[in-house]
Amino acid sequence: MARVTVVTPNPALDLTYLVDRQRIGETVRVRTVLQRPGGKGLNVARVLSILGIDVVAVQPLGGASGHWIERELADAGIATDTVVQTASTRSTVTVVDDVEQPTVLTEPGPPLDEDTWAQIHTRIVRNCGDGDVLVVSGSLPAGTAPGRVADMVAAGRSAGARVLVDVSGPGLLAAAGAGADLLKPNAAEAREATGAPDLDEALTALLALGARAVAVSRGHEGLTGADADGTHRTQPAVPGIEGNPTGAGDAATAGIVAAWAAGAPAEVALRWAALLGAAAVLRPSAGDIDLTDLAVLATRIPALPDVLQRFHLPL
Amino acid sequence: MARVTVVTPNPALDLTYLVDRQRIGETVRVRTVLQRPGGKGLNVARVLSILGIDVVAVQPLGGASGHWIERELADAGIATDTVVQTASTRSTVTVVDDVEQPTVLTEPGPPLDEDTWAQIHTRIVRNCGDGDVLVVSGSLPAGTAPGRVADMVAAGRSAGARVLVDVSGPGLLAAAGAGADLLKPNAAEAREATGAPDLDEALTALLALGARAVAVSRGHEGLTGADADGTHRTQPAVPGIEGNPTGAGDAATAGIVAAWAAGAPAEVALRWAALLGAAAVLRPSAGDIDLTDLAVLATRIPALPDVLQRFHLPL
Repeated sequence: MARVTVVTPNPALDLTYLVDRQRIGETVRVRTVLQRPGGKGLNVARVLSILGIDVVAVQPLGGASGHWIERELADAGIATDTVVQTASTRSTVTVVDDVEQPTVLTEPGPPLDEDTWAQIHTRIVRNCGDGDVLVVSGSLPAGTAPGRVADMVAAGRSAGARVLVDVSGPGLLAAAGAGADLLKPNAAEAREATGAPDLDEALTALLALGARAVAVSRGHEGLTGADADGTHRTQPAVPGIEGNPTGAGDAATAGIVAAWAAGAPAEVALRWAALLGAAAVLRPSAGDIDLTDLAVLATRIPALPDVLQRFHLPL
Repeated sequence: MARVTVVTPNPALDLTYLVDRQRIGETVRVRTVLQRPGGKGLNVARVLSILGIDVVAVQPLGGASGHWIERELADAGIATDTVVQTASTRSTVTVVDDVEQPTVLTEPGPPLDEDTWAQIHTRIVRNCGDGDVLVVSGSLPAGTAPGRVADMVAAGRSAGARVLVDVSGPGLLAAAGAGADLLKPNAAEAREATGAPDLDEALTALLALGARAVAVSRGHEGLTGADADGTHRTQPAVPGIEGNPTGAGDAATAGIVAAWAAGAPAEVALRWAALLGAAAVLRPSAGDIDLTDLAVLATRIPALPDVLQRFHLPL
């Protein structure tokens, strides 16, 4: 089966602060602190690993927080090809109570130096072969030139891999220009990066720049996909799902990648994305899925693709 | 001169997140991250050190955050007698914008085990001698029995030291019961711990429990002090001071301790507290003062005590 390389340019130690009630301008006692490896790419890698797919996570990590993330990934059985850096890996702090939506405070992350970018390139080249998949996902460290994203896309495509990119801003445009096989921003990111007034025009703009396809997760509205040949697809979300939407888009990305790895066609990839996204919503922890949930959820999506069987799921 | 031992039972790595605008329920990008050693006792120790007083900081520290704090204290020239613990030292996160008051998210901090408490006791005994000063300041780790505070007070007094305690809740009552020489809660803490409806009754209750004196910092209203012999004192704040009030109460504590260390009477101690509190407000960083500010501020307080000269300040 194809190997999937997931690059997370700006990983984070994700801290969750459980508080009685969020307040601005006051001292708020944190009742419980939870911590986990964070960054969208690491969420994608975790879901792929749970699906039994051959995945390797590539990311810069440094300091005590980076060391902790590396150990947690190892404990979770996720293969890594980490670039060790001097600067400490950033944190994000998510403040959660029972009343308001969570507040997410995201540190910018240390800039990557030339040598670190070169080492990331080396790891892409050594892990990607013909028919493999490269995923570049998540925010970019402060000061990252958009061309870095284009370079990663080019490295993956030169190695014969299909390349999926989920970044925002100028990096998304650069990935389009480099001919990424699939861009997967959310709807707001697609509009913001292109300056387009609506999602349709944003998709058109990204395809015009050179992206081979674009897929957008839209929460309860499902997914929308567009190919360079003019094909548009919509995939409804799995109905009746309530829970934690954080990381559901990353699970959907993993669904697309899983379908690619199995050689499934584009419409199956979108169905898988919807299924995995729904499974992630059911789990309290971002970027996690439970294989037994998939069996139940799959009954709610019409025309269950045979790709489900390929991963030996408990269906 | 007397040596001052400052115990910080629950130190923290204080992180400051500068953001464009605080929001609840959204993703907020952190523009800049600042970090410094935190915990009220460490603020007190820093101000005493700047005043040239012989001070030793006693605190449990662990993990990468603890290691960083230890190094920072050394760089600042503050002597330490640290108890190394296995658990990582907690963080606090202060979110700051130009619009709202800062929001402070305080992690609870790892509980201290029996051995750590025993080592803190050992450090109090070996650093405190006759005529010295012991300060116990700041929050207590989760699950700390109030009796731990009483034990520290007793250890300091047995060694012949004067003991100043700035803690909240049941620990404050325990310090009173153990006969602390001075309690220095803020007004809200004094009322909350005693359940008294106003500050006067709270002071009376703390003295009735056994405290030899109580002093309360009240921001722009100055300080209020009460002795067990019935003497009440008020000390106006230095007028016309605007700035960062965080840590001003800790600087005021350092002022009282500095006066004690110089053998000054109680009314001088309160005047010093007002002076140091005002100096701290002028500095953007909590628990910091500038010696040259003191000279200017001292001209605004009537009857400048001669204790000022004792610390060789640039007056």
